[in-house]
Amino acid sequence: MSQRLAKLASSLQHKKFRTKEQLFVAEGEKLVLDLLESFSVKYILCTKKWAQEHPLLSTTVIDNVLLKKASSLKTPSSVIGIFDIPKETPFNKDELPALVLDTLQDPGNLGTIIRTASWFGFQHIVCSPETVDIYNPKVVQASMGALAKVKVHYLPLAIFFKDLRAEKITVYGTYLEGKSIYKTAFNKECVVVIGNEGQGISPELKQYIDTPIHIPAFSSTPPESLNASVSTAIVCSEIARTIQS
Amino acid sequence: MSQRLAKLASSLQHKKFRTKEQLFVAEGEKLVLDLLESFSVKYILCTKKWAQEHPLLSTTVIDNVLLKKASSLKTPSSVIGIFDIPKETPFNKDELPALVLDTLQDPGNLGTIIRTASWFGFQHIVCSPETVDIYNPKVVQASMGALAKVKVHYLPLAIFFKDLRAEKITVYGTYLEGKSIYKTAFNKECVVVIGNEGQGISPELKQYIDTPIHIPAFSSTPPESLNASVSTAIVCSEIARTIQS
Repeated sequence: MSQRLAKLASSLQHKKFRTKEQLFVAEGEKLVLDLLESFSVKYILCTKKWAQEHPLLSTTVIDNVLLKKASSLKTPSSVIGIFDIPKETPFNKDELPALVLDTLQDPGNLGTIIRTASWFGFQHIVCSPETVDIYNPKVVQASMGALAKVKVHYLPLAIFFKDLRAEKITVYGTYLEGKSIYKTAFNKECVVVIGNEGQGISPELKQYIDTPIHIPAFSSTPPESLNASVSTAIVCSEIARTIQS
Repeated sequence: MSQRLAKLASSLQHKKFRTKEQLFVAEGEKLVLDLLESFSVKYILCTKKWAQEHPLLSTTVIDNVLLKKASSLKTPSSVIGIFDIPKETPFNKDELPALVLDTLQDPGNLGTIIRTASWFGFQHIVCSPETVDIYNPKVVQASMGALAKVKVHYLPLAIFFKDLRAEKITVYGTYLEGKSIYKTAFNKECVVVIGNEGQGISPELKQYIDTPIHIPAFSSTPPESLNASVSTAIVCSEIARTIQS
């Protein structure tokens, strides 16, 4: 049993198996306990000590050799949770503002963006199908338990934008040049598109962007760009600040 | 020679050897080329192909086995640069605002903060001695070449703050509770203290904080906190925005 579960946990590092089993994996005491509040748990693999410290939880004790096999970390933590992937809820045009991610590739960035979106009250994130999977263990790790608070959708973005056109919703896109975010009159009825870490927003999506925006640099020799999760956070902060005041 | 250099590059992943040799290491084409503009290079280890593509650079060709030994990455890139650690320039109280980092531990966070600080025109970052080393390869990687644009100092923070007291400089500190950053009248003559990822600002430094500030959440169920590089970026953006306008 414990051998089988260690193998299952390890396999869930790959999207193919997550899709097949409709399960995802999370490691670490704080994260697992956080996720238990919002996700239905299938198995909790842990050390004997951890199981004794949490007598109310239904756990499967596994030895250190198997824990190492089950873990994606160099130094495995004392607990690994295997959770059900919940059913996707549809995008709701009445719950704006929302974020749109065009082919974000770094799992740490996506996890951080989910955490930030949740902080600033963005309830939906729409991702291009090429964006890293939210149930990737590194995304789950970086989201720090905010995973359940934000609804993440994977959709072909051109179709999503075409659907939006009938509505009075402004589509902003972050570029290296554009209107300063500090001079943009954001309102609640908007979505903001964040581009890929290296390539920015795909050229074929440009036609759907109503207003290109950018974060001005305050230096004569700034770096080429900001980190994607940093620029997303600054835009979220600016939108939240201005639409609330 | 190439064997010795591969060993040197690998040893520079450790602070002890960086301090001893006064050298640091950076991997990847874009990063190495960026750093060549600002740092004095000691050796460039690369594949034969890379050397042929860059005939104007003085390179040392090493084979794939040695490149793998020299590299800190699972998949080594085709070039590794070994650079001189420059002499530290002293902190300049006339070049404000500045950031103060209290025991930041994640190298990715520090690198991202350096990149962000450079974007928003913060010229100095003062770090507690316990903060991760800026020449840690993961910091160098995440800073994306902004390393040369920001002066980073390692100082006991209590001494730094005592020195500041004679000056008319406001010390802000980020906490989970405090004055909203959106309602704070920042001026140029300030420093902002960012706390450790898990513990926040050390209790013994609280006496030096003139104004505790925080980033308000716009959600009824926000996560416990924001990522440290994200909250630093939002504060930098807010200071740059308000002192310029």
